[in-house]
Amino acid sequence: MNDSKRLENVIAYVRKNRPRFIEELSSLCRLESVSARGRSLRPVAEAVAGLLERAGLEASLVETTGQPVVVGRASGRSERTILFYNHYDVQPPEPLEAWATPPFEPTVRDGRLYARGVADNKGNLVARIQAAEAWNRAGGGLPVSVAFAVEGEEETGSPNLGEFVKDNAEWLGRVDGVVWEAGYRDAAGRPTLSLGVKGICYLELRAAGARSDLHSSLATVVPNPAWRLVWALATVKDPDERVLVDGFYDAVRPPTRADLELLAGVPDSSDEQARQLGLPGLLLGLRGEAAARRNFFEPTATICGLVSGYTGEGEKTVLPAEATAKLDFRLVPDQDPADIEAKVRAHLERRGFGDIEVRAYAGERPARTDPASPFVGLVVEAMRRVYGQEPVVYPTMTGSGPMAYFAADLGLPVAGFGVGHAGSAVHAPNENIALDDYILGVEVAATLLGKAAVREDRS
Amino acid sequence: MNDSKRLENVIAYVRKNRPRFIEELSSLCRLESVSARGRSLRPVAEAVAGLLERAGLEASLVETTGQPVVVGRASGRSERTILFYNHYDVQPPEPLEAWATPPFEPTVRDGRLYARGVADNKGNLVARIQAAEAWNRAGGGLPVSVAFAVEGEEETGSPNLGEFVKDNAEWLGRVDGVVWEAGYRDAAGRPTLSLGVKGICYLELRAAGARSDLHSSLATVVPNPAWRLVWALATVKDPDERVLVDGFYDAVRPPTRADLELLAGVPDSSDEQARQLGLPGLLLGLRGEAAARRNFFEPTATICGLVSGYTGEGEKTVLPAEATAKLDFRLVPDQDPADIEAKVRAHLERRGFGDIEVRAYAGERPARTDPASPFVGLVVEAMRRVYGQEPVVYPTMTGSGPMAYFAADLGLPVAGFGVGHAGSAVHAPNENIALDDYILGVEVAATLLGKAAVREDRS
Repeated sequence: MNDSKRLENVIAYVRKNRPRFIEELSSLCRLESVSARGRSLRPVAEAVAGLLERAGLEASLVETTGQPVVVGRASGRSERTILFYNHYDVQPPEPLEAWATPPFEPTVRDGRLYARGVADNKGNLVARIQAAEAWNRAGGGLPVSVAFAVEGEEETGSPNLGEFVKDNAEWLGRVDGVVWEAGYRDAAGRPTLSLGVKGICYLELRAAGARSDLHSSLATVVPNPAWRLVWALATVKDPDERVLVDGFYDAVRPPTRADLELLAGVPDSSDEQARQLGLPGLLLGLRGEAAARRNFFEPTATICGLVSGYTGEGEKTVLPAEATAKLDFRLVPDQDPADIEAKVRAHLERRGFGDIEVRAYAGERPARTDPASPFVGLVVEAMRRVYGQEPVVYPTMTGSGPMAYFAADLGLPVAGFGVGHAGSAVHAPNENIALDDYILGVEVAATLLGKAAVREDRS
Repeated sequence: MNDSKRLENVIAYVRKNRPRFIEELSSLCRLESVSARGRSLRPVAEAVAGLLERAGLEASLVETTGQPVVVGRASGRSERTILFYNHYDVQPPEPLEAWATPPFEPTVRDGRLYARGVADNKGNLVARIQAAEAWNRAGGGLPVSVAFAVEGEEETGSPNLGEFVKDNAEWLGRVDGVVWEAGYRDAAGRPTLSLGVKGICYLELRAAGARSDLHSSLATVVPNPAWRLVWALATVKDPDERVLVDGFYDAVRPPTRADLELLAGVPDSSDEQARQLGLPGLLLGLRGEAAARRNFFEPTATICGLVSGYTGEGEKTVLPAEATAKLDFRLVPDQDPADIEAKVRAHLERRGFGDIEVRAYAGERPARTDPASPFVGLVVEAMRRVYGQEPVVYPTMTGSGPMAYFAADLGLPVAGFGVGHAGSAVHAPNENIALDDYILGVEVAATLLGKAAVREDRS
């Protein structure tokens, strides 16, 4: 049986098993796995291990100080190995009242499956396991070796993934490519592929004043932490959107020619995006390639939250006792969250705001894969074949994730695609995927495994 | 019977009636009269009218579009008239759980009476009515004409008092002096007298961005209203505490020699104040006369509240849809709240922040009485006699109130003193007065009436 025939059989198997595949996904979505709640998710990890074993892989739970990482491995006909990075934890479902059906009771409506985590990213996880199953049952065994690393703490910043990668660097470092957790069709229905993540440095700034809130008539003689915070923040970024923290841009690597070439294939949706957001236009009047370039290649400084004093209805003449801001910096290669944190601290100190307390949350590094990497070519081929159209290739996601452990520390090519769509409501109520997209997702993973084997045979 | 003997009898009557006087005050404090809740306070106004009538005054309710103003009037042996300005409404009692006993169940503990409004300002209102009663019952009738204007909306900015004063300007304009609603013993137990109020301009600034909160990865291309607000606020005041709004200080009248002379009598409590507030020192390192001068004679710009985006525990990577600040400006003569509001709007427009929406709440003008006014001399005399010590005379309160309707519009001298003390917890849980201070408050009011008559007889 030739490669092409094998792949045909595998795809036919996938389509025939559509109802059961969807039921398997629904079963996993019924298991509440909110990592932010801090409870043990071991039963969910065991369920994932069960799915891997039924698909013909060897599965084990690797302990961490947090949730276990589920590892699945199986050898294929070639030495080549594809690694799937996924996670079995999900975002909190709140606000519950905004869900049309309960978040942990998966429900089909109008060809879509609604459940917390179905797009991010149990849908991708189960689809990829089922792709391996299809090769084992209908393709004469796996064409390449397949590995899964499925953590349970992605939604809380992957605090233990670095340790796992370090402990398992020997075998992880030998894989040929990593398929990242998620991906989406864009608003026009085009499949997309992402070749990186931005990093993130998340800080909380707190200014303190008197022991308690006071009557504002005391403002003549009592310092106001809300003013201190405003003055400090105003030194962090200026109205031209330039970050003023000394050295902030030092490590920014300019986009390569290959990066910029990708932009030509990214459709300009700036006007449509502004309209949907209820804005007269994007920031700084950006459109077209300028908007895309900024979106993919520029770091940001964002006030995520501000609070001080009286925030209710009407007037209250209060002099606040404290003021707090939450700030995130989205980072691009080769910025580093620890370095940015140190620079912000030094900047505040130097500007006379040493009294402002800075608390740093766990950061994540940016990561990028070279668009010219052969692995990226394989993924594009597989997507082109399954979707019947050219995928849109993004040089990076604009969000963050623990990709640097694989891309930077192990030097592996990483590419992200998946079963979501522009309206998947990830991290929001009524998260959903289209059932047709789901089955295509199984097919893409299966096709990628087949193409990876072919590529090696020819090289 | 001579004047001195009459006053002696009046004071004896006050002391003899102490238990009933305190019970009358308690009864009024049992009536919940929170104007901020917007319910009709007519039953409370009627109770005040009843107290006035029992004391021998003619009482009536003057309707407004809000709560009625209670007017009490009675002729005395001379043509001279003293007007008492008070209010029967109180601040909301929340947070209720912080009260040792319920706010509307007056309770005596350790010689203090605890109840919402007992210091601000039902204690002063009832004490003054009882002073009139004492003259009527034990002094051979009122020595001077007495009037009361008792509104029910002071705690919500006196929105209808201006109209009342205008409609009643004919008789109000002929009074000889106005006793203001409240006053306190300072932390060292010294009685204080205040000869003015600061004005206030209260604004809410709102910056708007996208239609809803967004994932912060969009910060490259979506404007952030929290940054807009921070940049706008940073143009309003600088870290040297100088207000930067164009023309803000134009109307500030420098303190007179008489104003400054009062400062010599104001004890320096700056170190003690800083210690109590948990601060290493006062703002800008101010102490002594410099602190007092700034406290009484400088206007302020205060951020009373700030809110935007995510304000809960931990991290959330959100790009906020809006950001709001509440600002108050405490004003000194001759600044005007409407003028300051216009200047802030023009300032924001000129600095490129015309997109920031400004909402103004009802403002209040500053007001001042000349320390050399004969009425001030009378009050000082009465206080010296009752307390057996010299009162501390403040050129102004640092808080605000509707004093300008009397002081500026009618040109009347106004002086404020009362039954509170430094720990009265006005506008806070466990509001209280000392019972001894209460009776002294009745005595001061009674003595003032007696002295006012004497002064006229001699002039």
